[in-house]
Amino acid sequence: MRTQVAIIGAGPAGLLLSHLLHLQGIDSVVLESRDRDYVEHRQRAGVLEQGTADVLRESGVGERLDREGLVHHGVELRFGGAGHRIPLTDLTGRTVTVYAQTEMVKDLVARRLADGGEVLFEAEAVEVDPSAPSVTFRSGGELRTLHCDYVAGCDGFHGVSRPAVPGIRTFSREYPFAWLGILADVPPSTEELIYAHHDRGFALHSLRSPTVSRLYLQVRPDEDLAEWSDARIWDELAARFATDDGWKLHEGPITDRSVTPMRSFVAEPLRHDRLFLAGDAGHIVPPTGAKGLNLAVSDVIVLARAFAERYASGSETLLDGYSDAVLRRVWMTEHFSYWMTHLLHVDPAAGDFERRLQRAHLDYVVSSEAARTSLAENYVGLPITWPSGA
Amino acid sequence: MRTQVAIIGAGPAGLLLSHLLHLQGIDSVVLESRDRDYVEHRQRAGVLEQGTADVLRESGVGERLDREGLVHHGVELRFGGAGHRIPLTDLTGRTVTVYAQTEMVKDLVARRLADGGEVLFEAEAVEVDPSAPSVTFRSGGELRTLHCDYVAGCDGFHGVSRPAVPGIRTFSREYPFAWLGILADVPPSTEELIYAHHDRGFALHSLRSPTVSRLYLQVRPDEDLAEWSDARIWDELAARFATDDGWKLHEGPITDRSVTPMRSFVAEPLRHDRLFLAGDAGHIVPPTGAKGLNLAVSDVIVLARAFAERYASGSETLLDGYSDAVLRRVWMTEHFSYWMTHLLHVDPAAGDFERRLQRAHLDYVVSSEAARTSLAENYVGLPITWPSGA
Repeated sequence: MRTQVAIIGAGPAGLLLSHLLHLQGIDSVVLESRDRDYVEHRQRAGVLEQGTADVLRESGVGERLDREGLVHHGVELRFGGAGHRIPLTDLTGRTVTVYAQTEMVKDLVARRLADGGEVLFEAEAVEVDPSAPSVTFRSGGELRTLHCDYVAGCDGFHGVSRPAVPGIRTFSREYPFAWLGILADVPPSTEELIYAHHDRGFALHSLRSPTVSRLYLQVRPDEDLAEWSDARIWDELAARFATDDGWKLHEGPITDRSVTPMRSFVAEPLRHDRLFLAGDAGHIVPPTGAKGLNLAVSDVIVLARAFAERYASGSETLLDGYSDAVLRRVWMTEHFSYWMTHLLHVDPAAGDFERRLQRAHLDYVVSSEAARTSLAENYVGLPITWPSGA
Repeated sequence: MRTQVAIIGAGPAGLLLSHLLHLQGIDSVVLESRDRDYVEHRQRAGVLEQGTADVLRESGVGERLDREGLVHHGVELRFGGAGHRIPLTDLTGRTVTVYAQTEMVKDLVARRLADGGEVLFEAEAVEVDPSAPSVTFRSGGELRTLHCDYVAGCDGFHGVSRPAVPGIRTFSREYPFAWLGILADVPPSTEELIYAHHDRGFALHSLRSPTVSRLYLQVRPDEDLAEWSDARIWDELAARFATDDGWKLHEGPITDRSVTPMRSFVAEPLRHDRLFLAGDAGHIVPPTGAKGLNLAVSDVIVLARAFAERYASGSETLLDGYSDAVLRRVWMTEHFSYWMTHLLHVDPAAGDFERRLQRAHLDYVVSSEAARTSLAENYVGLPITWPSGA
């Protein structure tokens, strides 16, 4: 079995890459260990940067996004009993779109299959040879080999691609908290996302649709979901979102709940020989700021351009520059995610000085045009080609 | 002995307060434990915010400042072998002025004495009674008491004023590094200040005059000055300021050297009964960003206005609001000083992840207009009346 680009993983990165390559006339095969139903229903992020929404639209897979996605022009920071709106669009001219990752995956799977693309579900990559290059995978109980010109490792943090890079360096940080996330069948209590800092901990009110709310609570990393009754979850959310003017949180049936650990992680380099890493295979951000999916998409945009150049002209210049080009923006985004996490969460190890400093910083961020703009330009997404300093 | 406002400490805060009160027809006596020569020659900070220079000019003590101060329109951040200018004035419309604190103290002492002001040197305050109110001090071997309407505690971190506030809360943080500072008789190698981040540690190139350079090196908190020969100091400075294009550091005779520990500290509240704290008596910042002197001056501006209202109308409204009004800006400035310290220093406890994050943040700060503006607006000094968030 042979293709031009073997893609491991049918998450947003792998599927979008396969789609973008197809538009350039480049063949790929996507290998996915899970079945289609699993891939299309796992709950993940839900806020698309302007650049992410743009690439979906421009590549012809934005129809349902345009119909069902909720375009947002601002977010709210809430602390000290009051809300402070960050007017993203006024500050940057750009927007974000609330559209679940899982819906984006459905759109991309449908489009790949409609275009005759090869997306092999329940095909588990077991070994990557970055030099042959090839990918050995298990499907229907058999081991098979996919030969190719290049391998794109889009198989997430636990995938087989990253370990196939000899001598790869990794950088990481664990956080002393996690997110308890719920989906609830209740119209959102807000039109825009609310990032709340409270002495009891961080809370986030996000949304999935006009009838479905997505809410998160900062909890301990080892939090036991069994200790969280529906009533306790709603009470805690209400306490953290409370305002001095009596803002109300609407409650409804909780349809999904989970605890997500928080981690920062970067691998360097993101390329070895004919193997390229993209998305969670190369880097993880804590969820504050909603950068994980968007970083994966920006990796893939850069990688697809590099493959396009390679197959159009034979030049590997962009492929050679892929890792450095992507890592600069990855690290800036890692910093933003780290910064926004620390801005809003309660660090159990923080002393009184650090807590006062955090409140002063929140106060400054919402009252300084420059600081608001810095937050906003990161939140809507730094341009893929970001200028160097003067 | 009796006055309207007893001022403890003839540093910039106490002297400026006495001067501003005099302009409003309010009597004060300044008690200073040291002699005049000591006060006029201790080496301290040297960068005045726009607001600090403005109050000196507007109150008629800016003549020598205008003649000898060096007005700066930018500063440089240097890392990775290259410099990046932050154009303060382009970004904020404001400037900073390089003028040594010790010169400012000389100007204020001369002016107070010329105006017939009472500045008692070698008069050591030993006890403050915030309610009487009064200050007991030792002068010429005798204990004397200064009775007053109000006491202004401008006597620094180690003074007697702060302990006179019952139940005062304090917030603090020590840093795992210090500054080794030198004065050298050599024309500065730069026209604008250079804040350098290097794997070997932070370095700062400041200036005192066209013929005197002020330079600093990040060292250990317990650094022994005896281990630093002149040659070692210059070599280390040259290594940390080195650029890829061969920038040259000029060397010259070192005339003064010292190691300064770095500390963040805030006391709350800054008032008890008739006693008001200003400057280092109430708060300390690490020196990165040059905020210590400027915070003291902004405290005094607010306090002088409050006394002016009190003696003009009898109203204590502004005095009652002094602590809260001042502390909001103090905390924001504490955050800026903390942030700029962490941006530029090498934390010996930082892991590889944190070091990469720091470099990415530097890269972002110099390449984002919004981030540069945020740095600049803090560096030139937040307005004394800073708006609340939207």
